[in-house]
Amino acid sequence: MPIAILPKHYTDLIAFKRESGTLSSISALVSWDQETYMPTAGAKARAEQSSLLAGIIHERNTSSKLGDLIAQCEADTDLNDESTPEGANIREMRRDYDLATKLPTDLVKNLARAQSQAQEAWKHARANNDFPSFINDLTKVLDLTREKGECYGYPEGGEVYDALINEYEPDTTAKEIEAVFTPLRDRLSVFIADLAANGTPPKVDFLHRSIPVEKQHAFGQAITAQLGFDYNAGRLDTTTHPFCSGFGPGDTRMTTRYEPTNFPDAVGSTMHECGHGLYEQGLPKGGELFGTPLASAVSLGIHESQSRMWENMVGRGRPFWNWALPVANEHFDGAFDDIDLDTFVKSVNTCAPSFIRVESDESTYNLHVMLRFELERAMIAGDLAIKDLPDAWNSKFKSFLGLDVPDDARGCLQDVHWSFGLVGYFPTYTLGNLYAAQMWETINETIPDIDEQMAVGDFNALLAWLRENIHQHGRRYSAAQLCHRATGKPLEADPLIRHLERRVKPAYNM
Amino acid sequence: MPIAILPKHYTDLIAFKRESGTLSSISALVSWDQETYMPTAGAKARAEQSSLLAGIIHERNTSSKLGDLIAQCEADTDLNDESTPEGANIREMRRDYDLATKLPTDLVKNLARAQSQAQEAWKHARANNDFPSFINDLTKVLDLTREKGECYGYPEGGEVYDALINEYEPDTTAKEIEAVFTPLRDRLSVFIADLAANGTPPKVDFLHRSIPVEKQHAFGQAITAQLGFDYNAGRLDTTTHPFCSGFGPGDTRMTTRYEPTNFPDAVGSTMHECGHGLYEQGLPKGGELFGTPLASAVSLGIHESQSRMWENMVGRGRPFWNWALPVANEHFDGAFDDIDLDTFVKSVNTCAPSFIRVESDESTYNLHVMLRFELERAMIAGDLAIKDLPDAWNSKFKSFLGLDVPDDARGCLQDVHWSFGLVGYFPTYTLGNLYAAQMWETINETIPDIDEQMAVGDFNALLAWLRENIHQHGRRYSAAQLCHRATGKPLEADPLIRHLERRVKPAYNM
Repeated sequence: MPIAILPKHYTDLIAFKRESGTLSSISALVSWDQETYMPTAGAKARAEQSSLLAGIIHERNTSSKLGDLIAQCEADTDLNDESTPEGANIREMRRDYDLATKLPTDLVKNLARAQSQAQEAWKHARANNDFPSFINDLTKVLDLTREKGECYGYPEGGEVYDALINEYEPDTTAKEIEAVFTPLRDRLSVFIADLAANGTPPKVDFLHRSIPVEKQHAFGQAITAQLGFDYNAGRLDTTTHPFCSGFGPGDTRMTTRYEPTNFPDAVGSTMHECGHGLYEQGLPKGGELFGTPLASAVSLGIHESQSRMWENMVGRGRPFWNWALPVANEHFDGAFDDIDLDTFVKSVNTCAPSFIRVESDESTYNLHVMLRFELERAMIAGDLAIKDLPDAWNSKFKSFLGLDVPDDARGCLQDVHWSFGLVGYFPTYTLGNLYAAQMWETINETIPDIDEQMAVGDFNALLAWLRENIHQHGRRYSAAQLCHRATGKPLEADPLIRHLERRVKPAYNM
Repeated sequence: MPIAILPKHYTDLIAFKRESGTLSSISALVSWDQETYMPTAGAKARAEQSSLLAGIIHERNTSSKLGDLIAQCEADTDLNDESTPEGANIREMRRDYDLATKLPTDLVKNLARAQSQAQEAWKHARANNDFPSFINDLTKVLDLTREKGECYGYPEGGEVYDALINEYEPDTTAKEIEAVFTPLRDRLSVFIADLAANGTPPKVDFLHRSIPVEKQHAFGQAITAQLGFDYNAGRLDTTTHPFCSGFGPGDTRMTTRYEPTNFPDAVGSTMHECGHGLYEQGLPKGGELFGTPLASAVSLGIHESQSRMWENMVGRGRPFWNWALPVANEHFDGAFDDIDLDTFVKSVNTCAPSFIRVESDESTYNLHVMLRFELERAMIAGDLAIKDLPDAWNSKFKSFLGLDVPDDARGCLQDVHWSFGLVGYFPTYTLGNLYAAQMWETINETIPDIDEQMAVGDFNALLAWLRENIHQHGRRYSAAQLCHRATGKPLEADPLIRHLERRVKPAYNM
């Protein structure tokens, strides 16, 4: 039952959060400008700007005024029903407030210092392939990260790793993730071995033809506009590391990167960020709710499901390229005029085990992620000593991907995450792929002619389904609830496996 | 005598102002992005960002903490000697604090509301050439602006207009301005009439040859880099209304505009903004002083002197074009290869009375400004009724520029300033020209071969003089003191007249 007149403590709470949201949107602009247009000499002053804003925002997020307003709303029986939008909003504001206030100031400071030191140590260790020099600093960060998890707390029967996941994928436990990762891992290993043994790798050399960067940019803008990204309410710029930042109502900034001789890389990263961008544009930020959980993304996993769906399910499919290949040839002066559609589609669906996660293909990527999940979970639980990480990494890598890791730089030292204390973050990448694949099956059932639509460049029905089932809800439901509501099932491994088999096997003539 | 160890109340004050400066630099980025890259749909949220930041900054600028620190420093006999940098810094912080705190909140709110209404009324009145419909709103804004001036206060024997000037050109009175404007006006009128009667206007048609905008941009970057603008610490972007914003240490953003068939317009506006940019880059923001008066521009008039010097004294001169014309031909595929240097230089030094200030030439521009100065001073003093403004405008225009104003849209309704309550602002434009001309004479005496240097694209000695005599001082001295220190004389009309005669008469074969 909708609440006819909202009480003052709730509207005050919304107004307070909206102002915090406005401050965060300023902070997002400051970061975006740093990556896009800031001159190099501006870096020092920019760090002062960012840190000043972070301080102001943290003060608001931990203020007793905010805590009091939340408590008043929780005590209000007209409001505290979680099945209503207001009740869900209050529940999520409580979650954020607790996360912001539960850590002792000393721990926050010690962790910041340890992270900063560990990052320098990590850079050095990776450059010199010298894991032992990194052990002390990594140990310190992981100890403090574990302490952070203990401060957050976790439900009985759980583990401290759950408390860490909760920052990125709320209401999800390591056991739940394990339940879906284990079958995925086993079946992926078989699938990849089968491709290697029995498939014929597709031709890919033509993908490296030289395409001027400006033309790649114009093509990227053209296809993302067609996917549904509203350029009156957003932009696409260029950065070294692509990202998407939803500043607030009417302003979503995507960035991508271009290499003259790697056109599919830009397409992949642009469509990936566009998936994030469409989610940000679909969140209900327009009204009074901006800055509150109802207008915010539910989890990293769901955010990633949107980017992965447009990048992979759409962007590596035959229907998409049926429309997009002629568009590309138009933009690129016929650079691929001699390549037929089937040959082209096969070329963007390769599968080849390799050492570096961020360069890996759609299938093996998940094995890279699951390996990290298992190792970080063991390290946080105290079941794996930091000094034993390289051996554990290498033996798992052999078992998952069938390759002998040549050195730690191409092994356990390749990612920045752990030196930052980002533990519980990795699994959200594969959760995103899993959510995307499961939604994709439902979408194909709900819109039976979706392939025909995409083949003529019509993505309206697909976007409408995502708006309706995912975007509009913000954080009203948890990721798991959202998945169940949208697909009728809890998260499973099968849809992703089925998707990869349908997509990659034909590329290998299997 | 330098103060060996600065007391805590002074270092606390500096740190407080530095943090305010950082907040202002964020606000400057927010405005810059709004004009350069913000998507249109972001406007509403952007207004919220700007207003939130303005509120936070205003709260700091009027806080009792700041007032107490200033008072403590003023009471400290080791600090309060204005001849020291610290003493000057404290004097200027007092000025800012008083300006920020002297206005009653009600007046600030009423003025904001009246400005907003008057702007809408002005847009309508200008579009419909309907001055009577603007009278009420303009009267209200000017009444409140007068009240603002009364709140600020002014020295005995002065007038309320002095208090308004003080916001833009501190320590300058209407009488002082009048003393230099009156001879300038009289001599300019004679000069312009003489040109019209006895001169041959130069050829200008070739200036409208079509030059692609990207090439104009590359040329603009090339010449401003040569003038000395540090692109590691700044940028040049495109906006409808060009401006320059010195965010803070290491980050100065200039913008300009391009028309395919009006290349000199872009050169003028780019060199103008570069003058502002070089001043911002030359202010001592690098150390702890950022955010304090010592690291800030002294006045609008001095800021404008920098832009005008590079735009006019340098940018319309034969030496500059001796170097720049071949560079332009290189960038523009020889677009002006058939134009000899003398013909080109003449073409950018025309003088022709016209109705619109922002489209006027270097000579007549000052008459437009002086007319506004006399009229706004009379309106604020109550000597000119608002309803009589059109007649007063038109008769002064005839007397100054010899033209009959055809309608109010091309007359007293052309500028946005008065509807904003920006009274006392106009004279700073011509003060800038006067300061620039007077400095220019000193520079030519101090660097006798400056023409030879500029003719080969060497602007180092010129920039070094400006850094030494103007930029480095921030607000340590008033504009008048700075002028006297740099040129050995108080501000006079003669140098500007001499400059225009030397520059424009030859263009008219006189």
